Amino acid sequence: MAQAISIFDTTLRDGTQGEGISLSADDKLKIAQKLDALGVHYIEGGNPGSNSKDIEFFQRAKNLRMNAKLTAFGSTRRKNSVAEHDTSLIRIVESGVPAATLVGKSWDFHVHTALQTTLEENLAMIYDSFAFLKRSGVEAIYDAEHFFDGYKHNPEYALAALRSAQDAGADWLVLCDTNGGTLPSEIHEIVSRVRAELTAPIGIHTHNDCELAVANTLAAVQAGARQVQGTINGYGERCGNANLCSIIPNLQLKMNYPCLTPEQLQSLTGTARYISEIANAHMPVGQPFVGNAAFAHKGGIHVSAIMKDSKTYEHIQPQLVGNKQRILVSELAGQSNIISKAQELGLDINANNDKTKQIMEQIKELEHQGYQYEGADASLELLLRDAFGESKAVFTLDSFKMIMEKSAGQMNAEAIVKVNVDGQSVYTAAEGNGPVNALDNALRKALVQFFPKINAIHLTDYKVRVIDEKDTTAAKVRVLMESTDFTSSWSTVGVSSNVIEASWEALVDSFRYALLNMDKVEPTQDEPRERFGLVNH
Amino acid sequence: MAQAISIFDTTLRDGTQGEGISLSADDKLKIAQKLDALGVHYIEGGNPGSNSKDIEFFQRAKNLRMNAKLTAFGSTRRKNSVAEHDTSLIRIVESGVPAATLVGKSWDFHVHTALQTTLEENLAMIYDSFAFLKRSGVEAIYDAEHFFDGYKHNPEYALAALRSAQDAGADWLVLCDTNGGTLPSEIHEIVSRVRAELTAPIGIHTHNDCELAVANTLAAVQAGARQVQGTINGYGERCGNANLCSIIPNLQLKMNYPCLTPEQLQSLTGTARYISEIANAHMPVGQPFVGNAAFAHKGGIHVSAIMKDSKTYEHIQPQLVGNKQRILVSELAGQSNIISKAQELGLDINANNDKTKQIMEQIKELEHQGYQYEGADASLELLLRDAFGESKAVFTLDSFKMIMEKSAGQMNAEAIVKVNVDGQSVYTAAEGNGPVNALDNALRKALVQFFPKINAIHLTDYKVRVIDEKDTTAAKVRVLMESTDFTSSWSTVGVSSNVIEASWEALVDSFRYALLNMDKVEPTQDEPRERFGLVNH
Repeated sequence: MAQAISIFDTTLRDGTQGEGISLSADDKLKIAQKLDALGVHYIEGGNPGSNSKDIEFFQRAKNLRMNAKLTAFGSTRRKNSVAEHDTSLIRIVESGVPAATLVGKSWDFHVHTALQTTLEENLAMIYDSFAFLKRSGVEAIYDAEHFFDGYKHNPEYALAALRSAQDAGADWLVLCDTNGGTLPSEIHEIVSRVRAELTAPIGIHTHNDCELAVANTLAAVQAGARQVQGTINGYGERCGNANLCSIIPNLQLKMNYPCLTPEQLQSLTGTARYISEIANAHMPVGQPFVGNAAFAHKGGIHVSAIMKDSKTYEHIQPQLVGNKQRILVSELAGQSNIISKAQELGLDINANNDKTKQIMEQIKELEHQGYQYEGADASLELLLRDAFGESKAVFTLDSFKMIMEKSAGQMNAEAIVKVNVDGQSVYTAAEGNGPVNALDNALRKALVQFFPKINAIHLTDYKVRVIDEKDTTAAKVRVLMESTDFTSSWSTVGVSSNVIEASWEALVDSFRYALLNMDKVEPTQDEPRERFGLVNH
Repeated sequence: MAQAISIFDTTLRDGTQGEGISLSADDKLKIAQKLDALGVHYIEGGNPGSNSKDIEFFQRAKNLRMNAKLTAFGSTRRKNSVAEHDTSLIRIVESGVPAATLVGKSWDFHVHTALQTTLEENLAMIYDSFAFLKRSGVEAIYDAEHFFDGYKHNPEYALAALRSAQDAGADWLVLCDTNGGTLPSEIHEIVSRVRAELTAPIGIHTHNDCELAVANTLAAVQAGARQVQGTINGYGERCGNANLCSIIPNLQLKMNYPCLTPEQLQSLTGTARYISEIANAHMPVGQPFVGNAAFAHKGGIHVSAIMKDSKTYEHIQPQLVGNKQRILVSELAGQSNIISKAQELGLDINANNDKTKQIMEQIKELEHQGYQYEGADASLELLLRDAFGESKAVFTLDSFKMIMEKSAGQMNAEAIVKVNVDGQSVYTAAEGNGPVNALDNALRKALVQFFPKINAIHLTDYKVRVIDEKDTTAAKVRVLMESTDFTSSWSTVGVSSNVIEASWEALVDSFRYALLNMDKVEPTQDEPRERFGLVNH
């Protein structure tokens, strides 16, 4: 068994430098607890000396019971000053964290250009700052900024910077590829040299500018690094930080370095999706290990082989990281995809019975009309359940009407919907920012009286494309919608020559799918059912 | 100077296995031309023996003048049969392509489990198929499926499969990490061994299941591979194929392997974005090298250092790949593109005058609102002409109204439009297959009396995408439209939280652009002007 690797998560610090990532103190506390449950060893929470949000976070985090070491971030002391008087360093110690990371220069070019001081003063800044942390009883981690670029330009100075931190008692020397421009072969060579020259344990911190952050991290571990720094889903500035969601399973499942317990590793997919929801950041469907398509199979030949033995086209068992196999249905695939999807749902389907042939014909006809089920799992599931009489016909549409008006620069949209819920006719109206939003609001208003939980559902993506380009505004369009209830997500499809009708179809499928697992509530007398109303949403 | 690397693009074949990627024959022809301009050496177009869309593509592609070799894809012959009688192989030869890829088994487990034949028969299938291609005068590329998994289980058999293809005259032996589960260190070791055992040139084809596809490709090149297979933006099944947009700049700028000319490399960002538009696939903002945030700087310290010397926080100059530095939250795309576009229109614009600064500010504000002019040349031209007072204000909108109704399975859409054409108020109404078609019909009816040639115009493409994913049906959407008058085509953009309003904007721009070069006709007395009417189109 190889030596264990320390997992250092910086989602809450370096991750928030990513474009569009902004976390409140509340968000940060939720994420910290989720990271602790995942089993990471260090959680870098932010800079308690820099802003009020981080100060609040560190104060409130004191009440969390965590196994992970909460870690504060800061810089080495200012030039020509004294560590004991550096308010930023003092705030780190006062925050009461068990561990702290200080970033410091190791590239001579940066000492001159960015810091504008002497090489000797930078070494003193490193030494003084780490000596101060160690006297204060804090575990001390040196983030050697631009270490690889620095080493390539002036190896002796880069090593001297590390030695300064080590001499002052730093517990970890973390080599940072700050600009993300280094190749794995260079990382391996340079980390090996550092290991030979210094005695303190080595860490690695990489960025993804060359799409090599994960590979660079693995190369550093192979050369002897024992701490890996990264973020969940690879959030971070520019192209992001090294993605722990890929690093951890690679280290543990492929290279046999223990990082988490097997049970913790199974929570990886759930953790990644939860944090993407909190951060309000779209998760790529094809994200390695934890993405919705990471173990999705489309090609017909692949699928028929997968059904013979899943090892044929899967590099690991998806359950090991808490993900699952998905069979996609598409024009490229044979019927084996549909059969295995139905089997996954527990429906009695096989290649030989009449029912199966009938469903295949139906799907073929729908695909010919422009439906596409590879990106619309939930619509396919409803179609299969309908065919087997195993769906719930919770509501049916009687009619809807849309009125839109643009005048004097103002645009209004309102929808009137008449649906039948279990025999009861419900008639609602609502406004919206656009026609689909107005329909969503009106339908939701009709259903929420019976299914209060429906308010937890919201749409996360909406795409329209023309299917037949010959006669475009009169051509058919396909709408794909993605919805979530925060614990899972599902996709639905609608097709029509009318974009509003296609959107309506996808919307109805989304609600129907959600209602499969929701119980109906009878509205009480105290809450009279609203039958009609034009309400501002 | 290191040896040149052959770039083999499979966006049109393996890329279309990606979830949500579906390309028409038209889309494929457009992408092929863009790839050829980028300078890739092979363009794998699909399987001419498998489906009608690919057959159409290969037929129409014969008329393209390309430097790249158009490549067909297929499999080795069926078991227990003869290559000369294999319809799939015959179709490849008949398609008239200069090069073809055949995928064949090299993992003994797959021969038994998936093919269900003997190890000897598989070797014969490989030999016969390549001998047939070579007798037919086609450059022949062997995609050794699951080569690395196969090699790890039975190295002698995996090598025997390669040797079969080599003995039959195959021009390239491409080692495929089909499941994407192999590590860079393993790739390096195995490719080195293959290089020592065989004489035919080696290629590499990797998948991104471990977030290592780019690193695995580079490791193979370092071990002697001379062809790299991948897709634009890494499209492909599950977690995608190796991303050529990262591989090419890494090879050329970091490792000094020539791939493209420096001018071609500068078109990389534009190519990646164009193809993501055609594929209607969201491009991650942080995509390495070509993403909008790849060279964006947010952190205050980083930005002040960047201003002192951009080398401090940038691993390459963004212009080398046609991208650009972004500081703060500037959404402005390609200022120099805009200047050169204006100059092309004969407008007096340059980086220093006040008018230019004002236009740049306006475009920046519009891009902040979600407009995007890279895919909407005609809208950009109208905007520039408006700013210089050089457009024609042919018509203005007073108001429009849309009514849609769905009842008893019937869906109706009607539009009422009130426009002012050169001081004359025109009020028309029309039905349509959908709301956008109804608006198109009503507006056309108002304008055709003055501009009879307008009937030659029609829309060829229509795409909708959500911009802000936070609150989806209430979020903003961007509509991109493409129109043609049969001699030229142009693209326009519209943005709104209301998909109908956004469509209207793009539609109005499309007509305004067409009218720039159309003369107005005064309707004669014999053809009384229709002021109002609900007409069936």
